[in-house]
Amino acid sequence: MFKINENYLKLPGSYLFSDIAKKVKAFGEANPDKKIIRLGIGDVTLPLAPAVISALHKATDEMAVKDTFKGYSPDLGYEFLRSLIAEHDYKARGVELALDEIFISDGAKSDSANIQEIFGQDNKIAVCDPVYPVYVDSNVMAGRTGDYLSETGKWTKVIYMPCTKETNFAPEFPKEEPDIIYLCFPNNPTGSTVNKKQLQEWVDYANKVGAVIIYDAAYEAYISEEDVPHTIYECEGAKTCAIELRSFSKNAGFTGTRLGFTVIPKELKAGEVSLNSLWARRHGTKFNGAPYIIQAAGAAVYSEEGKKQTREQIAYYMNNARVIKEGLESSGYTVSGGVNAPYIWLKTPDKMTSWEYFDYLLKEANVVGTPGSGFGPSGEGYFRLTAFGTYENTVEAIERIKKL
Amino acid sequence: MFKINENYLKLPGSYLFSDIAKKVKAFGEANPDKKIIRLGIGDVTLPLAPAVISALHKATDEMAVKDTFKGYSPDLGYEFLRSLIAEHDYKARGVELALDEIFISDGAKSDSANIQEIFGQDNKIAVCDPVYPVYVDSNVMAGRTGDYLSETGKWTKVIYMPCTKETNFAPEFPKEEPDIIYLCFPNNPTGSTVNKKQLQEWVDYANKVGAVIIYDAAYEAYISEEDVPHTIYECEGAKTCAIELRSFSKNAGFTGTRLGFTVIPKELKAGEVSLNSLWARRHGTKFNGAPYIIQAAGAAVYSEEGKKQTREQIAYYMNNARVIKEGLESSGYTVSGGVNAPYIWLKTPDKMTSWEYFDYLLKEANVVGTPGSGFGPSGEGYFRLTAFGTYENTVEAIERIKKL
Repeated sequence: MFKINENYLKLPGSYLFSDIAKKVKAFGEANPDKKIIRLGIGDVTLPLAPAVISALHKATDEMAVKDTFKGYSPDLGYEFLRSLIAEHDYKARGVELALDEIFISDGAKSDSANIQEIFGQDNKIAVCDPVYPVYVDSNVMAGRTGDYLSETGKWTKVIYMPCTKETNFAPEFPKEEPDIIYLCFPNNPTGSTVNKKQLQEWVDYANKVGAVIIYDAAYEAYISEEDVPHTIYECEGAKTCAIELRSFSKNAGFTGTRLGFTVIPKELKAGEVSLNSLWARRHGTKFNGAPYIIQAAGAAVYSEEGKKQTREQIAYYMNNARVIKEGLESSGYTVSGGVNAPYIWLKTPDKMTSWEYFDYLLKEANVVGTPGSGFGPSGEGYFRLTAFGTYENTVEAIERIKKL
Repeated sequence: MFKINENYLKLPGSYLFSDIAKKVKAFGEANPDKKIIRLGIGDVTLPLAPAVISALHKATDEMAVKDTFKGYSPDLGYEFLRSLIAEHDYKARGVELALDEIFISDGAKSDSANIQEIFGQDNKIAVCDPVYPVYVDSNVMAGRTGDYLSETGKWTKVIYMPCTKETNFAPEFPKEEPDIIYLCFPNNPTGSTVNKKQLQEWVDYANKVGAVIIYDAAYEAYISEEDVPHTIYECEGAKTCAIELRSFSKNAGFTGTRLGFTVIPKELKAGEVSLNSLWARRHGTKFNGAPYIIQAAGAAVYSEEGKKQTREQIAYYMNNARVIKEGLESSGYTVSGGVNAPYIWLKTPDKMTSWEYFDYLLKEANVVGTPGSGFGPSGEGYFRLTAFGTYENTVEAIERIKKL
């Protein structure tokens, strides 16, 4: 008789954003006259940049003709895309990468969920708290997290690094030594960042204790301040301890187009075994590449036009972020983020729990946000709004919140 | 100190098709004047059908405009595509499926590699031998297969079901009871099929012993004979024991476009737990959907035009299959497949091993095929050719082989 993966049953409830979607759907059906504004899920709203659209049409035309038709993609992704990444995302910042240290994927969600697979069962993970749920949930499914204690909202074998107002929303080195450290800067959900000196300390720490940092830099394009690192490899020694995850979702609006990549330097080793070779094996065995036309679209993001157009999109969203941040601050809210990240993290008023505030905001202002507690126990009492709405909706949402 | 997943180190060599690619590359570089014909990897060569191309352009245009732009896809995939699948692939064959029993993915390779995740560690898998390498390799990575014995080419905890000339290339019920049974019909690599009565026996067997069948129907569109089932759900009782994997790669040339789906009926349960709910959780947590424009392209495959055009492509490949089969048979080869599948499976001449014949064919005829032994120990002494080349190349390859 077959047996299921019992670890799945340990997961409390379903995935955060599915829960929100269900609540919003129910509210919408019960209140068809209300105009709901969604500043919850981190989904973009601007259409793809013209340069990307042109590339999609051009690549589609190539797929229509025998001589230019493309079948299976190379295991690591097309070299034309990996070259552009190496050049623009890394070399331009003083980081040299070999092309086979870059793995093209269908997005950072898949990569951040799958990367744990190349590690053994008995690694202890450390996560910021609050945190993007996929890091922990994928480790739960793999059986690496012990048991869930509903009283604390914590897994017994996970090391939590609280990121709250008290820590300036940055993690501190944990008391217990972790094996795998998930870091995300600019941060989802708090919108906070660390400067280069702070990140260097994490790299030094990881090298010292023999930990791997899984560095999620999905929001890199939103950095506006000088001293904030765009890639962890700007830090000395990062190549022997860090894996970096990147996404086209937020820098080029690819949430529904799906493209991302992972960098694993060959120097990152356990004894003689390079993690690069393990991930290459996974990529070759369990994945068949991102679509050619999507990879071609990704390349267009690095063209002069593409860069200009996507920068304009980011400026649009960051203007929304400013509207949210300033609007909330003027109403007396305690707010972080919104400067180097498209997320605004607010302290709920009147000691409401995160879900209480979610329900309150949905009912009274018809605005959807994300309950901070959904990102971890230290997120309780906080709430995330995103800058990915339209400008008009963002302004209206903030007006409604101000009126409450 | 972090620990790697040691199971990866158990995998002998690298992935079959990567090995072949390296050998072919080396030969090509050493012999730049030779025209190599590739009938090895199962990659298509015909361009995408005009209906699919139109859909890609149209969907791209939608992504260019705010009002029709699409962000994150629904967890299970767009309903417009799942409805078409339910209607054309299932209802048309007398099978009723609910739309939430269909999960859109980026292709059958990912699904066939990932599906094992929802099962516990201590399940025993049974595979046909020879077999598509991903089923076993993904279970190796998950630590479910014991040790690899290089003398036998077998994993100690895998149940092998030999499919050779002696068994008419169909598996027989194993002596030891399996928990999970991987079946693929029309078969890759042997090109063989089972009829409905035979498949019904497997369904009855699985229900009796409490096993799950993972049924890979990626080549369903190539079936030409009447009595061969197109979906396992044509068999009575399959909904309580079978998961079905489907692909757009071979029926519509999507190898570089990436789209597939998995069906898990809600009746398929372990006690109270439906496997459908586990896969839904995985889909929601570890995957972010196939690109919208690719899902729109998939929908076009079901349009009247799309069906007509993709049928013509399949007819083109199946004519190649006939050329290979008849050509080899006229040269005295023992051959299976090529009637309901785009694969031709041949017995190597002069008792050559599969890799000896690979090297021989590459060197003497500059034709690339796939060594049967790469698909499992019972594939030794066999060789796979695919019908996915151009007609001209296929004819030339067979002429060259005949001359040897």
